[in-house]
Amino acid sequence: MTNPSLLILPGDGIGPEVMAEVRKIIDWFGAKRDLAFDVSEGLVGGAAYDAHGTPLTDETMEQAQQADAVLLGAVGGPKYDDLDFSVKPERGLLRLRKEMDLYSNLRPAQCFDALADFSSLKKDVVAGLDIMIVRELTSGIYFGEPRGIIEEGNERVGINTQRYTESEIDRVARSAFELAMRRDKKLCSMEKANVMESGILWRDVVTEVAKDYPEVELSHMYADNGAMQLVRAPKQFDVIVTDNLFGDILSDAAAMLTGSLGMLPSASLGAPMANGRPKALYEPVHGSAPDIAGQGKANPIACILSFSMALRYSFDQGAEADRLEAAVEKVLAEGGRTADLLGEEGVTPLSTSGMGDAVIAAL
Amino acid sequence: MTNPSLLILPGDGIGPEVMAEVRKIIDWFGAKRDLAFDVSEGLVGGAAYDAHGTPLTDETMEQAQQADAVLLGAVGGPKYDDLDFSVKPERGLLRLRKEMDLYSNLRPAQCFDALADFSSLKKDVVAGLDIMIVRELTSGIYFGEPRGIIEEGNERVGINTQRYTESEIDRVARSAFELAMRRDKKLCSMEKANVMESGILWRDVVTEVAKDYPEVELSHMYADNGAMQLVRAPKQFDVIVTDNLFGDILSDAAAMLTGSLGMLPSASLGAPMANGRPKALYEPVHGSAPDIAGQGKANPIACILSFSMALRYSFDQGAEADRLEAAVEKVLAEGGRTADLLGEEGVTPLSTSGMGDAVIAAL
Ligand SMILES: CC(C)[C@H](C(=O)O)[C@@H](O)C(=O)O
Ligand SMILES: CC(C)[C@H](C(=O)O)[C@@H](O)C(=O)O
Repeated sequence: MTNPSLLILPGDGIGPEVMAEVRKIIDWFGAKRDLAFDVSEGLVGGAAYDAHGTPLTDETMEQAQQADAVLLGAVGGPKYDDLDFSVKPERGLLRLRKEMDLYSNLRPAQCFDALADFSSLKKDVVAGLDIMIVRELTSGIYFGEPRGIIEEGNERVGINTQRYTESEIDRVARSAFELAMRRDKKLCSMEKANVMESGILWRDVVTEVAKDYPEVELSHMYADNGAMQLVRAPKQFDVIVTDNLFGDILSDAAAMLTGSLGMLPSASLGAPMANGRPKALYEPVHGSAPDIAGQGKANPIACILSFSMALRYSFDQGAEADRLEAAVEKVLAEGGRTADLLGEEGVTPLSTSGMGDAVIAAL
Repeated sequence: MTNPSLLILPGDGIGPEVMAEVRKIIDWFGAKRDLAFDVSEGLVGGAAYDAHGTPLTDETMEQAQQADAVLLGAVGGPKYDDLDFSVKPERGLLRLRKEMDLYSNLRPAQCFDALADFSSLKKDVVAGLDIMIVRELTSGIYFGEPRGIIEEGNERVGINTQRYTESEIDRVARSAFELAMRRDKKLCSMEKANVMESGILWRDVVTEVAKDYPEVELSHMYADNGAMQLVRAPKQFDVIVTDNLFGDILSDAAAMLTGSLGMLPSASLGAPMANGRPKALYEPVHGSAPDIAGQGKANPIACILSFSMALRYSFDQGAEADRLEAAVEKVLAEGGRTADLLGEEGVTPLSTSGMGDAVIAAL
């Protein structure tokens, strides 16, 4: 049997640094747990633009389509701010999401016990927090046509289109209900059905899908109220499902509740491939953090936990994912901290590779 | 000289209760400060639908156009959930905003000293918080065409259109810069220029307008990062300017940071009328709270402070607005609390009218 294939796209900013630590972890699983992967590497984002004049080459796109899973670091940076929209680093990531048809973006917002003090929220509001935001990732205003900047009369007009089909809503709703079934069986769907017709359709379809999941308690919330409730009492939620744009904003707010953005992974899943595995891309929630890039300060844990999500969702290795997550918790419990997690006095921060080594030691 | 005119639209849920307290305050200013208003009252939202089959009659719309200022309570409620989109309570409010052309929505998020403990955020993160969100209110995805639910192939498709012209962005940006000039001279503009062309135009135009306000320090932030930064360190902001939809969500998140939604007013301003006053509508940030409606539990302060914003922005009565705000702070400092502000042991809550009376006593 051949090994499963992993395509690694470190990207920009701190992407390469944190990915280097993930490669150590992957090697460890190959050597010690008999879980070997065929790893290849490619360019995405600004790094791809610098080399090829495009944020994602057709060759890399094709490799991603063939891979059993893709692991991405981060894209973007001020260096690319003045590039034309069509070749901005972000377009590389968006093309991957769209062409791989990764419609279900899983963004856990989880508060690690050892880090609860680190949140800007009161400890009792966030301690033990464990919610999962399911964000639609291939449609909505990110991709709808018409779009662009046109001339009209004497002025420019900026246009984007939110567009959701029933089947697009149906499939992401199903993935959220499936997740809720494996968790606390509570799902909250968020839109602006009081203002947007696309929100009305969203609510309709989610309500329809709910009939197939009678055990799941479904609720609906306007997205503005959702933002409030996430700040006020986030533990009221189990799974949240929402569209591409609301998901972008709400999942970032939710991530920040935990106080430790450097800790949070994400999975973007599509339909099953011939081998039964879903098309999948895993990436940390944090961005490319150009301000600290290249200094060995970045926290590799979000990227390491993204690999853990890959073990769980792509490779059916739940036990190995548990092992890796336990190792991360152990390092934290023992006081291991990268610079982003400092706060307590007198703790010397671990470097990016120091944290990677600590996780391996804990494994 | 005739008195300035005020149109009062209590609306639904707790709207009528909180507005009754504002009327007491208005009467007090007439009797004690020689500031009389010609007050008339009308229906909006579900209340208008129940009486007339539409959430806003043409007569009330016309009255609002003529009034020197409109004061609105709240609209909406589960009773109206199944109404057709075109007659939902919210359409009444949206019609007012659109036809009065109230493009600049001012939403202060201010943390009252006496209530800092009440936030879900740590006290040092929010104590002294005083930011102003300027939300574009007459355009964007709330009003753009085409919109609706259409049939395509075998399925329904929900469509909404984000559409911003240069002049729409220009005028709201100017109002935000003007505000920044009167505050700490810092303005942060939020969009998703990395994903949406309308966001690119937004950023362009705001940058252009900035040339007329060289004293204001302008920054740009992606809206998802904005949501994070509001949770992480809200005091980094002074004035924020953003579009209709992002403004809806971000201002609600910001409001919740203060821990006391029942305290927060808003002003929606348009172009100056013949008499020099801006077209204006004032309303609390909170909704109609149908769960507590009619029980005398609602906090009238947000609505009272909305009247205070009217004194300041419509009637040039900054000193009287200060007087009213000081009275509210005095009541809070002395421990006056409606039910939504409880938390401390052993405090008996004031009723809605009890709070209104306490503010009058403090005046
Ligand atoms: C980088 C950017 C295109 C992206 C998005 O807006 O989706 C990011 O914010 C995210 O949430 O993954
Ligand atoms: C009631 C609703 C239409 C409204 C909006 O979405 O603008 C409300 O949420 C607000 O923020 O004033």
